[in-house]
Amino acid sequence: MSSKNDLKVLRHSAAHLLAQAVLELYPDTKLTIGPATSDGFFYDFAPTKNFKEEDLPKIEARMHELSDKNYPIEHEDLDKTKAREIYKDNPFKLELIEDIPGDTVGFSKQGDFYDLCRGGHVSSTGEIKYFKLLSLAGSYWRADRTRENLQRIYGTAFFTKEDLEKYELQKEEALKYDHRKLGKEMDLFSFHDEGPGFPFFHPKGKAIINVLIEYMRHLRNMSGYVEIATPVILSDELWKRSGHYGHYKENMYFTNIDDKSYAIKPMNCPGAILVYKTRPRSYRELPLRLSEFGLVHRHELSGVLHGLLRVRAFTQDDSHVFCTIDQIQQEVTKKIENTFKVLNKFGFEKVKVKLSTKPSNAMGDDALWTKAIDYLKTTLENLNVKYEIEAGDGAFYGPKIDFKIEDSMGREWQLSTIQVDFFQPINFDLHFVAPSGQQERPVMIHQAIYGSLERFFAILLEHFKGNLPFFVAPVQIRILTITDEQKEYAEQIFKTLKLQNIRVEIDESSDPISGKIKSATLDKIPWMIVIGKKEVENNTITLRFKDGNQEPNLSINDLIDRCKSQN
Amino acid sequence: MSSKNDLKVLRHSAAHLLAQAVLELYPDTKLTIGPATSDGFFYDFAPTKNFKEEDLPKIEARMHELSDKNYPIEHEDLDKTKAREIYKDNPFKLELIEDIPGDTVGFSKQGDFYDLCRGGHVSSTGEIKYFKLLSLAGSYWRADRTRENLQRIYGTAFFTKEDLEKYELQKEEALKYDHRKLGKEMDLFSFHDEGPGFPFFHPKGKAIINVLIEYMRHLRNMSGYVEIATPVILSDELWKRSGHYGHYKENMYFTNIDDKSYAIKPMNCPGAILVYKTRPRSYRELPLRLSEFGLVHRHELSGVLHGLLRVRAFTQDDSHVFCTIDQIQQEVTKKIENTFKVLNKFGFEKVKVKLSTKPSNAMGDDALWTKAIDYLKTTLENLNVKYEIEAGDGAFYGPKIDFKIEDSMGREWQLSTIQVDFFQPINFDLHFVAPSGQQERPVMIHQAIYGSLERFFAILLEHFKGNLPFFVAPVQIRILTITDEQKEYAEQIFKTLKLQNIRVEIDESSDPISGKIKSATLDKIPWMIVIGKKEVENNTITLRFKDGNQEPNLSINDLIDRCKSQN
Repeated sequence: MSSKNDLKVLRHSAAHLLAQAVLELYPDTKLTIGPATSDGFFYDFAPTKNFKEEDLPKIEARMHELSDKNYPIEHEDLDKTKAREIYKDNPFKLELIEDIPGDTVGFSKQGDFYDLCRGGHVSSTGEIKYFKLLSLAGSYWRADRTRENLQRIYGTAFFTKEDLEKYELQKEEALKYDHRKLGKEMDLFSFHDEGPGFPFFHPKGKAIINVLIEYMRHLRNMSGYVEIATPVILSDELWKRSGHYGHYKENMYFTNIDDKSYAIKPMNCPGAILVYKTRPRSYRELPLRLSEFGLVHRHELSGVLHGLLRVRAFTQDDSHVFCTIDQIQQEVTKKIENTFKVLNKFGFEKVKVKLSTKPSNAMGDDALWTKAIDYLKTTLENLNVKYEIEAGDGAFYGPKIDFKIEDSMGREWQLSTIQVDFFQPINFDLHFVAPSGQQERPVMIHQAIYGSLERFFAILLEHFKGNLPFFVAPVQIRILTITDEQKEYAEQIFKTLKLQNIRVEIDESSDPISGKIKSATLDKIPWMIVIGKKEVENNTITLRFKDGNQEPNLSINDLIDRCKSQN
Repeated sequence: MSSKNDLKVLRHSAAHLLAQAVLELYPDTKLTIGPATSDGFFYDFAPTKNFKEEDLPKIEARMHELSDKNYPIEHEDLDKTKAREIYKDNPFKLELIEDIPGDTVGFSKQGDFYDLCRGGHVSSTGEIKYFKLLSLAGSYWRADRTRENLQRIYGTAFFTKEDLEKYELQKEEALKYDHRKLGKEMDLFSFHDEGPGFPFFHPKGKAIINVLIEYMRHLRNMSGYVEIATPVILSDELWKRSGHYGHYKENMYFTNIDDKSYAIKPMNCPGAILVYKTRPRSYRELPLRLSEFGLVHRHELSGVLHGLLRVRAFTQDDSHVFCTIDQIQQEVTKKIENTFKVLNKFGFEKVKVKLSTKPSNAMGDDALWTKAIDYLKTTLENLNVKYEIEAGDGAFYGPKIDFKIEDSMGREWQLSTIQVDFFQPINFDLHFVAPSGQQERPVMIHQAIYGSLERFFAILLEHFKGNLPFFVAPVQIRILTITDEQKEYAEQIFKTLKLQNIRVEIDESSDPISGKIKSATLDKIPWMIVIGKKEVENNTITLRFKDGNQEPNLSINDLIDRCKSQN
């Protein structure tokens, strides 16, 4: 009794238990809906007086009482006329009843409590033992901003005490390793009232961003990509042509130059397209693989800004491949391989892949779509990548592949996408001269692997709980001398490592070596170099890791080789 | 008779000759002023009908006739009343007369022609033989946009035919190696109507920008600088506090977020200041050396935009050092050394240095200024740097050192500056905790070595006439095979070099080796690798330089070492 599906049944039952407790405590409350979610459940209420955070423990206590009473949970089908009578004072339920096909609706009962319900419950309230109410939020009836305001109570439930405790521990951990907290403790970045939603990267944070960029730049370079840089400000006309002005204007910032309106770019594609169009292109140039670390600005409501996870300005590791339809397979193969390479490199081993196919509002002819989707499927299968198909979930302009990772705390994050695009090449009238001498239309493939560098940074930081691996740590090595007599030797090593672009610092305090080791550990420095009298005499160093393991007698060249092997 | 000063006399005389010719051809024209400049002269006219480019040869021909007539040039002092009478129909000259102190004004005469003039001429028009009219431009009376529109004719003059020819050759060269022309030929960058003044860097151009950044990043890293990144958009309040809003608003772009006005940053300093202020600072952290490759936007009139030399968006290799007044000398020493290192590295050997001292509107107390200027002087002298003092030419907020380079075509460019700043630390109320435990005020030192990466790029390109040296060339090596049989070996070498981040490509054409060599030379690739049967057998390569010199029998490792030695 603990598969994902059964858990959904338990959690949906817990939502009913919550509604029952709320009705007993606040009898005038109107019920709406209470589904299970991927990690818990919620119930949306229309209370006469808004709930407060302080009310949650009281509600939770009442739920436990109701659980102890072990009411059997019964399900029956009710005539709609009767149902309408029961809910004559609840417009929400009346609306739901009308939406259900047929003449009857489901009803669930436990003790005095009943609720309109499709069914799928545990057999009695006594089975719902290990649950927790989590938070309170505002919501809208049917998630429609123009409809009634509701209040949502979130909770979760598990079959065993251990599972609930594990969950609570995980939540506590997530709070402890919140990237905003780590970012402050580790002096990585900050936000200021002068630029809400715009991150300021401090030296150690910028060092991490630079590693992300350099790693991706090298990988792309090895895969035949070439890098471009396009302006941050571009004319409204361009965004009208690209369609962003029509569909995305609310999220864009604008400025005026010489009485003309310009947008601050929310995407990099139109810039890449202008570079493509600079001169006529030949089939010999295809696939043309343009990459750009492009700074984009997108408006977010101030209420949803969330550290580096949700910002108003971020850098995308964007790429735009211009190719023929028959080159899709070769290009996507390389892209998928690179995606896994990057995600694994940064410690994400669990990756879910989704292929989204032709939606009902699709643009472009059927044969094109079929061909492209076949190429994507074949590519995934040839690479032995397991994937799910989300039928009809592609964008109107082409099919796509999404990559979702799971982090060390079991949370899922949508990161990379590969997006085939039939639309912009038509929209911007792109051509290449085919071997026949005729003008043909290229296909575009958009891809970002990190997605947003800022968001990836935040996820990485939380995933490693701040203990970033050597190759991405802002300070990779700290040099610790046992006494001041080794200072000169330490500085010599410092310079040698720096010349190799290794991120190194010296502990210049007068602490004893045990204190220096302790503070390097607290500062989450992956490697320490310990230098005493013996090391100076032998022209060596002792390498010490965070776990206390030591390797004595390394030469500087050994150390440098060791560092390079981490890249 | 060819010192700079004499040349100024000759050129000012040529301006008179120009005015005389114009008056003979267009008698209704009103004269204004006609000074010598650093490389020629101009005269600003108020014509009844605008001149056209086509008029210049006619005017120049008349100047030659007047020169042939060899009129003596005479100078006399005239009573102001008489002068006013003479110029009763010329409001410009009347205004000038009022501005001249005393009761008399200078008059210069040659033939029928006379002009209000301070004096300083050659003795007769026959001495003005080697001159050239260059161009036509719009100007304003007294360079004031709110005053009358004038037309300016530019020209230059020399004492000898050889000098004029040399100048014309140089001009022709400059035109031939105009970075806009080279940029197109070499496919480095482009401009588009969608973003006037905003450069688009193509792959080879971005490769150059990346070299500039990486070289500077490494140099700064070795000098104890740490890199930050601050937002492009920041609130108006910040720019009001920094003073930019008050003094620089006309050149700034603005945007609205949540009904508040924000500026697109024209400078990086306020961002660095906010990072400094993130937390209390101790004297132990000073000097805090923050560097930033900061993208700034500054408005320029569309008429003055000029390729990458004058743009509306550019990246500065900015740095901001926060230090005590007594650390100025140590910091500026490092900065001057780095400036020379960079300029020499990029082939600029002729560098002029200028120290600008306290202006009349200076801020901050005298002792502070004296101390800072003494430090700067001592530093320059200790480093054996020759410099000129520009008394009173410092900014109101502190003294500065400017670096001007001379390029391969004899043109001077102002590039780097080191600017001491007493003002912003007071303005933003910056502190550090001194050893005494008391709060003290740091000094800021601003520096950019390239200045604008885009402008430096343009100067570099023209300086080398497109033949960029190995370490900065967008493609460093092209691999040429003698027959297709060496293709596999060529690809193996290609990958090995790429893994080392060497910018390499393969000529995949079916041209004979002589053709491949020719096109690599035309494409300005610094090194070629020639591979034939022998090279494959011996597992070597032949290295060929642009000048035709060849080095056979190099191993790949030799080649890689050779490449690295160029960095």
